[in-house]
Amino acid sequence: MTDIKQPENLLSQLELLLGKDCVLSGDALRERASSYWDSSPMQGIALLKPHNTEQLSAAMKLCHQFGQTVVTHGGLTGCVEGTTVNNQDVIISLEKMNSIEEIDAVGSTVIVEAGVTLQYLQEAVSEQGLYFPLDLGARGSCTIGGNVATNAGGINVIRYGMMRDQVLGLEVVLADGTIMSSMNRMLKNNAGYDLKQLFIGTEGTLGIVTRVSLKLQQQTRSRNTCLVAVDDFASVTKLLSRLQGDLGAALNAYEVMWGDYFHAVTEPGWHRAPMGRDYAFYVLLEAAGADAEGDGPRFIAAMESAMEAGLVVDAIIPKSESERRALWDIREDFDAIVKPQPTFLYDVSLPIKYMEDYVAAVKQGLDKLWPQSKCYIMGHMGDGNLHLFITPNSAGEDLHGQSDEQVYKPLEKYAGSISAEHGIGTEKKSWLLKNRSIEELDLMKVLKRALDPLNILNRGKIFDV
Amino acid sequence: MTDIKQPENLLSQLELLLGKDCVLSGDALRERASSYWDSSPMQGIALLKPHNTEQLSAAMKLCHQFGQTVVTHGGLTGCVEGTTVNNQDVIISLEKMNSIEEIDAVGSTVIVEAGVTLQYLQEAVSEQGLYFPLDLGARGSCTIGGNVATNAGGINVIRYGMMRDQVLGLEVVLADGTIMSSMNRMLKNNAGYDLKQLFIGTEGTLGIVTRVSLKLQQQTRSRNTCLVAVDDFASVTKLLSRLQGDLGAALNAYEVMWGDYFHAVTEPGWHRAPMGRDYAFYVLLEAAGADAEGDGPRFIAAMESAMEAGLVVDAIIPKSESERRALWDIREDFDAIVKPQPTFLYDVSLPIKYMEDYVAAVKQGLDKLWPQSKCYIMGHMGDGNLHLFITPNSAGEDLHGQSDEQVYKPLEKYAGSISAEHGIGTEKKSWLLKNRSIEELDLMKVLKRALDPLNILNRGKIFDV
Repeated sequence: MTDIKQPENLLSQLELLLGKDCVLSGDALRERASSYWDSSPMQGIALLKPHNTEQLSAAMKLCHQFGQTVVTHGGLTGCVEGTTVNNQDVIISLEKMNSIEEIDAVGSTVIVEAGVTLQYLQEAVSEQGLYFPLDLGARGSCTIGGNVATNAGGINVIRYGMMRDQVLGLEVVLADGTIMSSMNRMLKNNAGYDLKQLFIGTEGTLGIVTRVSLKLQQQTRSRNTCLVAVDDFASVTKLLSRLQGDLGAALNAYEVMWGDYFHAVTEPGWHRAPMGRDYAFYVLLEAAGADAEGDGPRFIAAMESAMEAGLVVDAIIPKSESERRALWDIREDFDAIVKPQPTFLYDVSLPIKYMEDYVAAVKQGLDKLWPQSKCYIMGHMGDGNLHLFITPNSAGEDLHGQSDEQVYKPLEKYAGSISAEHGIGTEKKSWLLKNRSIEELDLMKVLKRALDPLNILNRGKIFDV
Repeated sequence: MTDIKQPENLLSQLELLLGKDCVLSGDALRERASSYWDSSPMQGIALLKPHNTEQLSAAMKLCHQFGQTVVTHGGLTGCVEGTTVNNQDVIISLEKMNSIEEIDAVGSTVIVEAGVTLQYLQEAVSEQGLYFPLDLGARGSCTIGGNVATNAGGINVIRYGMMRDQVLGLEVVLADGTIMSSMNRMLKNNAGYDLKQLFIGTEGTLGIVTRVSLKLQQQTRSRNTCLVAVDDFASVTKLLSRLQGDLGAALNAYEVMWGDYFHAVTEPGWHRAPMGRDYAFYVLLEAAGADAEGDGPRFIAAMESAMEAGLVVDAIIPKSESERRALWDIREDFDAIVKPQPTFLYDVSLPIKYMEDYVAAVKQGLDKLWPQSKCYIMGHMGDGNLHLFITPNSAGEDLHGQSDEQVYKPLEKYAGSISAEHGIGTEKKSWLLKNRSIEELDLMKVLKRALDPLNILNRGKIFDV
């Protein structure tokens, strides 16, 4: 009698279950890149491609029986090493579970499998005259399951909220293979605990999301964009409040770029600068509304009035979609500043009223530590969320660790977050202990132990149990 | 040596801790009403009125040590018997923890103690030029802590979401007295599990909410209201989509009344009917926007165009605040229909596309069971949420149970919810087992056991462990 707890035995049982084509190992696995950012060969014992929830459930029952750790993969575009694999892990890829199952135009809801890419969903609902508002640079590769697992943010949060706010219901495979279907389609449901919240933003550590029910929005009829230059930070915050008053819910993007950032990405050979390159701040803002004729004049009036009030010192309104796209490229395509290696990316949030002091503290610390360093900042300012890019331009040990220290230490004073939208993964694990209280971490561990007592789901990500 | 596990010993220790004034028992306790709806004397061993979180934490440590069950009380306006007390329970009232601690006008956030009433908060932030959008009939009595514990809904959900969507951070006292502070003030925070979600809508069964950090909104500058009559249900849903397109995010209320409801509450002696009383459906709708001058004409144009399209057969726009209030009273003050006893109130949700069939099924069932019965329906239609009022007008055993059967049975076919916003409490417990799957209920119990292993927090509410 053979011992069924041997990994090779697990692998052969998984092959029987899913078919050999859907269990990759050896060279077939190593041919794949580790992630969108890392082209080194994929690690792991095997990669499974279940066709449906039932197959995945059966596979998880086996893995649970073997105490086998699993890591779930979506589009692999995450920024915090939340999907890294070691040579003892099995990978679950949801790439074959990529159908849009139902679009309900009356109720404005859609049901999808977790492997659907964000962009595919956006386009499919758009064809039905509806709108799915989550949007981020990785739209072509990232999956809805990954968006759920990381509670993705992006460029429309100020108006529509994060992924959590779009999710109505989930189907999840638990650590022991149980299928927990909670596919609610209603905007309101207070019948018992709202279980889906457990799986949103927990980075695959509490369950594997297999199907998702999402809320859709009506399409807007107007879109107005403007790039403005602003002289000081106080005016950046005043302009935000003023426009939220003048434009109401129509304001859907308010993206701030510090002067250094704008200057760097408009260096010769990169983006063309549509206005002077030496202002203190730039804001790319966009509003979308229901009034195709009236929204444009109202938007221009609001901008003119902000200029007259002295909040805005220069402004440009794009005259075509290609001009609009060129403005957004300045904000979204920052190859110019990540070219020098190493450059470290951060994603912090803090109350807006402390931002200026915080940024000053970070820059001061960096100047002292690395006089040649660069610190570029931009962010979803309306959400209190800043992205920092730090290039040490110095040699030395543990540059990343020292850079982290410069960014996260000054944040403590303002009770800011070390991760506004990217999550924790393994990259920010050591800092999580400092960012959240002992009581919070203890409660996270209580949940992890209750839902995944063998610790087989994305083990070692976010925190160690 | 005395046995410290005697209840009288617990009581004397609680008195030492909180002061005798803050521990009510005997007549002082019985003088209080059981709830807003039930004037019978309050039950329980004692009612505690802690002054702050530390006192509450110490009291909970004692209760935990004694295995003492506790029930937390806010404004006692809940609709599902979620705060009922038996003679073995200790009551925690947060009535002394009622301060607004900080309003941040730049970040649009507020921090409050859980005992603050909804209306007090609404008024305080309004004085600072900001807006807290949660609103419901019980605003003068219900507390923010209760709104969190029940994930309250109300009349602005279509635009601003439920209480869950307003909460940024929580401080909670756990079953063993641990203070779990997660007082995030940022719109975005993905640093580890979002623990606050555990305590929102779980009706005090997983922890006691003591402080809350809330998101605020900009005040709008226009408000336009209209009562319309509509001939058929298909037009009610078409009108909703059309207005969501024409008015965009400005539409903040879309309250539907079935003809029977409108007819009954405008009987002589009740509300004055502002238009004919015999239409099939009435919709009270309201929009609020940023354009003080332009929003009115745009609203009227949208309504005129809906009339021309044949969706609306009669309409009235109030000319004053008192006329507006009179229209809202028709929707909010339904004394006329709850006068005959017994009348049972329901709060269901289901996809809008199934609503007409569902209502027909309920009415058919009721006509067969109780030919003299009445069934009045209105609801937050944009949210998929209907309230039903059923008056059996019949004698017999277990009228309530039979009525439940008529409402909840037909809902199963459409995967609707037995509680859109009211919660489960004890009133809907037996139906929860039919409304959610075994896997969902099992997972709820896993959470309850993990967070409250002695089952002392609001024991027996929602489900039995």
